[in-house]
Amino acid sequence: MSTKAEARQRQILAAAASCFARKGFHQTTMDDICREVQLSPGSVYRYYRSKEAIIAAFVEDDSRDLSELLQHVSQQPDLWQGLDWLIDQLLAAISSPLYAELSAEIGAETMHNPAIAALVRQSDQANLQALIEVFRLAQQRGQLSATLDLASTANLIIALIDGLTWRKGLYPDDDLSSYATSIKSMIKQLLSA
Amino acid sequence: MSTKAEARQRQILAAAASCFARKGFHQTTMDDICREVQLSPGSVYRYYRSKEAIIAAFVEDDSRDLSELLQHVSQQPDLWQGLDWLIDQLLAAISSPLYAELSAEIGAETMHNPAIAALVRQSDQANLQALIEVFRLAQQRGQLSATLDLASTANLIIALIDGLTWRKGLYPDDDLSSYATSIKSMIKQLLSA
Repeated sequence: MSTKAEARQRQILAAAASCFARKGFHQTTMDDICREVQLSPGSVYRYYRSKEAIIAAFVEDDSRDLSELLQHVSQQPDLWQGLDWLIDQLLAAISSPLYAELSAEIGAETMHNPAIAALVRQSDQANLQALIEVFRLAQQRGQLSATLDLASTANLIIALIDGLTWRKGLYPDDDLSSYATSIKSMIKQLLSA
Repeated sequence: MSTKAEARQRQILAAAASCFARKGFHQTTMDDICREVQLSPGSVYRYYRSKEAIIAAFVEDDSRDLSELLQHVSQQPDLWQGLDWLIDQLLAAISSPLYAELSAEIGAETMHNPAIAALVRQSDQANLQALIEVFRLAQQRGQLSATLDLASTANLIIALIDGLTWRKGLYPDDDLSSYATSIKSMIKQLLSA
């Protein structure tokens, strides 16, 4: 895809995020998004045919970002250093503007829109499997107990990050990095069980 | 309030929860709720003048339930037994039908409805303070370090529960009680820091 098309898509997504955060997914129209991004409907529909397609793009972007972080962690020889780095990256990501608001909108939409739910579950499962793979490699290196329940552990870590995302939306002024040390220590405990 | 009025309110709330979970908050009308509960608009409006009033009732009910649990924990002489009991109760509560779906709807509404946001923050702060009070009493009994950052610890525990609620909505068939032991161990670690 050309750089120009990518730039245009990023513009549209940023405008949509801003509309969804302000008015909510259901009260935002495609017209609102066109006005916000100052493009004609034709230019917007060329990339995204519906609000659902925009939500799908957000889910895919988010999943790709997390997948790249997990790929990097899986290449680190030391699990604990890799995880500490991952937590810092995730706290920064969920603190970025509109991220928490958008996550809440997508969360609600997931509950009663089967197409969005399928997409969110698919990307969540991919991330979960990638985190489990990080732990499996660490088991092979003898850094984690061979009897650890990897799926359950990965689920709890992702639940904690999801919960922090929701709380960042509720308290936008909170500095999530102040929790970093406690979170790293909780996760070490979970992995040492 | 009479028992009959209370029963009627519970009926209306259950019907509303079912509508919100099926169609989402914004796509549900007061008429949908009247039809679902098989009552006349007059009977419903007598208790709840708007969908916002219904959401407010959910938030208040949920906050009162949690407040009662925390009240019970604060009366237990042993912090660890009290917390283990609390975790089991919370996992059961967030596993109850429609709870996760409703939480996601309220979460999204919180992001762009200042009245709902104020209510959710107020009840969240009350719960947070009640949990901090449980820890403060345990500090007085010498069960927790006097230097522990109680606010940060309480925030992380609530974030974990919030995240598990969201994941229960995403995977309704998941059995959250299977995480109980790991969660209790994570929280012990957090409190022993």
